[in-house]
Parts: sequence; structure tokens; C-alpha cells
Amino acid sequence: MSVDRLFAEVAKKGPICVGLDPHMDHMPEEVRGLSIEETIFTFNKKIIDATKDLVAVYKPQAAYYEAYGLEGVRAYQRTLEHLRKEGALIINDVKRGDISSTAGMYAKAYFEGDMEGDLMTLNPYMGMDSIEPYMEYVEKHDKGLFVIVKTSNPGSRDIECLEVDGEPLYIHVGRALEKLHGNTIGKSGYRNIGFVIGATNTVEGEGAFIRKAFPDTFFLVPGYGAQGGKGADALTLLQDGNGGVVNSSRGIIRAFEKSSKPFDEAARDAVLSMKEDLRVGL
Amino acid sequence: MSVDRLFAEVAKKGPICVGLDPHMDHMPEEVRGLSIEETIFTFNKKIIDATKDLVAVYKPQAAYYEAYGLEGVRAYQRTLEHLRKEGALIINDVKRGDISSTAGMYAKAYFEGDMEGDLMTLNPYMGMDSIEPYMEYVEKHDKGLFVIVKTSNPGSRDIECLEVDGEPLYIHVGRALEKLHGNTIGKSGYRNIGFVIGATNTVEGEGAFIRKAFPDTFFLVPGYGAQGGKGADALTLLQDGNGGVVNSSRGIIRAFEKSSKPFDEAARDAVLSMKEDLRVGL
Repeated sequence: MSVDRLFAEVAKKGPICVGLDPHMDHMPEEVRGLSIEETIFTFNKKIIDATKDLVAVYKPQAAYYEAYGLEGVRAYQRTLEHLRKEGALIINDVKRGDISSTAGMYAKAYFEGDMEGDLMTLNPYMGMDSIEPYMEYVEKHDKGLFVIVKTSNPGSRDIECLEVDGEPLYIHVGRALEKLHGNTIGKSGYRNIGFVIGATNTVEGEGAFIRKAFPDTFFLVPGYGAQGGKGADALTLLQDGNGGVVNSSRGIIRAFEKSSKPFDEAARDAVLSMKEDLRVGL
Repeated sequence: MSVDRLFAEVAKKGPICVGLDPHMDHMPEEVRGLSIEETIFTFNKKIIDATKDLVAVYKPQAAYYEAYGLEGVRAYQRTLEHLRKEGALIINDVKRGDISSTAGMYAKAYFEGDMEGDLMTLNPYMGMDSIEPYMEYVEKHDKGLFVIVKTSNPGSRDIECLEVDGEPLYIHVGRALEKLHGNTIGKSGYRNIGFVIGATNTVEGEGAFIRKAFPDTFFLVPGYGAQGGKGADALTLLQDGNGGVVNSSRGIIRAFEKSSKPFDEAARDAVLSMKEDLRVGL
């Protein structure tokens, strides 16, 4: 099960997820002057090579590749190929959500072929039959899911936090996902459908409330760093330093903007600082 | 405004949206034996050329291209290029939804460059700050949005239909979108943020209820035909034959499976039958 593999990586290296969100307007000098495809791929490859012994999983965000058209998508494919070659775990952060026949095609897109990763993110708005088609890959092909449940942006209060039967909507969404998954819990003690739970709180104590509500669910935690989430907030969502991974994108891949070192070394330093902030033994 | 352009196309040609969802397992003999890229592009091009005088807008569904990796994405780009060359309107059916910085990149991806279309579909689960970044393209670059509100799949009851303050969640979502948009209504009388509203009803009379709740919103109506939605259900969501487009994918692009004619002629016949079913003057 992919969540078991992720759990093992976290146990070895700590709960760091590096978001590979390359932006052509924020590239270091060392990779300027190349084609878009070469710029993005070279940038990602150097970041990966400089951090892979410290990082549990990499999370390329599809938007940052799709925005650059065919060149961007080729850079995405080459980044995934490099990650697979290095044996690194991959979360394809695509947040897809669609009816079942279409969902089957998205599963094929991100669990097979050019864009194959180990886990992918999904959006649950359309309901459980938009999640179910991915389960075959989870159950038979060692893949895993992170479904967005409570996100890190201020707009999360607009829909995710609406009150349904006296509880926030996101609690209902989480329970429906638990039900979909049944009782198959991996060796790690965690389920194969993980949740995306933001490091930022909409109300005081929300992180602890969510962690308690879903004790055997693995969390992907965005919102740390540039989005305002603190190490202490993120830690509330872990359990004994595992049970989740904390993502940082800009804080790591753009660390060179505040450093005199080459961008890949600056990224490595930023991962080390993040580990310290999360109080994980190095 | 894109919705005004769509309204004008519907006034001229009727409310038909053709879903371009090519599947390599369901290709006609005429295009077999080519590469994946050539198969998909040739198939789409012939369907477009055979139907363009009858169709208001084409809706390629990104999953059916992404599933075939880089070749599929190249076929997607070439399909969009052909549609733009023919002056046909395009809905990029990508249902993206993410935090604002990422949303800005998705807007760039589908409103500019290789994958440029006229409108795109979005998922509102993460809240209004995940929709807002697209508004610049809507207001300044003549682009338009269709946000999923109440979909056509059985799972729509899982989240979209949950009761919030005595009303279905999708009504709250629709109202939040109206508020985001403000009072800028186009010459057509419709707003530039359209909604995706399925042709199938979760409860009796739902279509009429939704149409009445959002009288100045343009609807993209999936679920007709292969998904079980009837012409009468779809018509409930229109107003005087406009104010929405009804999508059919399999019913048109796979019409050749039930016909002795070449696949493009079968597609044209299927569009004509659909117009009759929707009682639109030819």
C-alpha cells in the first residue's frame, strides 16, 4: 500500500514534502537562458538531487506545468521520470474530480504511463462515485490518494466549513471517505485514502479537532510557511512525527532569493531548517 | 463577454454542446492504425468539420487526453488549434480548483497559449478565493467560466445536495458565485459565471427549482443521453431555447457504433436527432 510506503519514508527521513511548483518569473540565474522545458526540468532536477536524502515525498503541482503549455507538460513528464529513477515517492497534485468514466481516465493518466506517480490528490465535491474509480489502482496497484477535505486557504470557510447537521461539512466529507474505504487499514495503521488538511486553522483548535476525528487517516498538510501555517500548527496534525507529511513549496524552491548560495544548496538548507522547525531528529 | 458570444451562437444554431471525449478503445475503423496522437486528432477534426454549422460550442474533456500522456496532450493542443482556426467556441472541461496562486496558473494554462479556450469549467469546493483569480480573464479578456454546482452523477447527493440552513448546499454555492460576480450582467441578460447543472434530477422537479433560483445564469448541462438525462429534463434548464447548452459526448462521437455510415456522418445525424429531441428549429 502506498500509504505504508509513505509512512516508512517518513519514519526514515521525517515528514517533509517538497512542492515542485516552478514559476518562470522566479528562476535563479543558473538556469536562465534555456528553453522553458529545459529551465523547469534542470531546476527541478537540481532541487531533487540536493534534497532527496532528507525528503519523504515530492509533490509537483500540475498547474505550474500546464501553464507553460506543451513545453511545461514535457518538463512535468521528465521531472516525474527523474523522480521515479531516483526511487523517490511522488504525489501528483492535480486535484481532479469528475464522473466515474472520466475519473477512470484521470486515474490512468496519473497512475500509469508518462505521468505515473505513487499518489494523487482529488477533489470530492461531486461525491463518492467520483472517487471510487481510483480504488482499483489503490487496491491492486499499490497507489494512494489524498482527497481535499479542509484546505489552508481563507476561502475554505465558504463551503468546506458550512454547518451540516451541527458539524462542519468537511467532517461529513471525511466520514464518507472512510466509509468508501471500508476497514482495510495498512500495516502502518493508516488507511489508503489520505486527506488534505491545511496547516492553517479557520477556528482555534481546529487542527487537533480534525486529528482526533480521523485518527487512522494519513494527512497531506499544505499551507506551511509561505501561506502562514506555523510548525506548531502542522505538528498538531501529525502523530508522533508520522501520520502525515507537511508540504512546503516556495519556502524551499525559492529559498535562494534570500540566500547567497546556489539555489539547490539554498533548498537543502531550507529543508534542514524546516525539519528543525518541525522538531524532527536529523 | 464570452457568455454573450455563447448566447449568440445558441440563438443561431441551437443549444448543442459536443463533448470531445475520445477513447482509444472506441475508435472507428477509418482512424485505426495511426499513432495515438494522429488517431485522436484525426477523429476529432472530422467530427468537428462534420458538425460545426449545427453546434454552439465544443467541450473537450481533458481527462481523455491526459490519459494518453504526452501524445494525448499534443492531440488536445491540435484539437484546440483546429477549433480556434474554425472560429468555434471552446469550453476546456478541466474542472480545476485550487488556491489562488495555483488558480492563476490554471487560468494562464487554459485561457492563453497552447491550450487556449473561450470558457473553462471549475470546481468550487475550496471556496471563492479559488474562483476569483480567473475573473481578470473574464473581465478583461472576454473569457468565461462554468463552475460545477449540481452535477448529473448519482454521487451528487453525497455533498452537493447536503442540507445547509434548510436548503441544498448547491444553492449556497450558486449564491456565493452570484455574489462574487457582482451585478455585471452581459447584453444577453446572463452573467459571465455560468453553472454546470446536470440534466438528471436527484429529486422530482429539481431542474425547474434550480432554473428559478438562478434566472440570469447560463447553464452547461451534462448528463443528457448516455448518462440518462432526457430532452425534457434538459429543456427545463433552458429559457426559450437559450440560457444554456446541453452537452452530449458518447451519444454523438460514438454514434457510428449504431450506424452504417462513416463516423463523421453518423455524428452529424446524431446532432440533428438531438436538436429534434430538444425541439429546436433546424
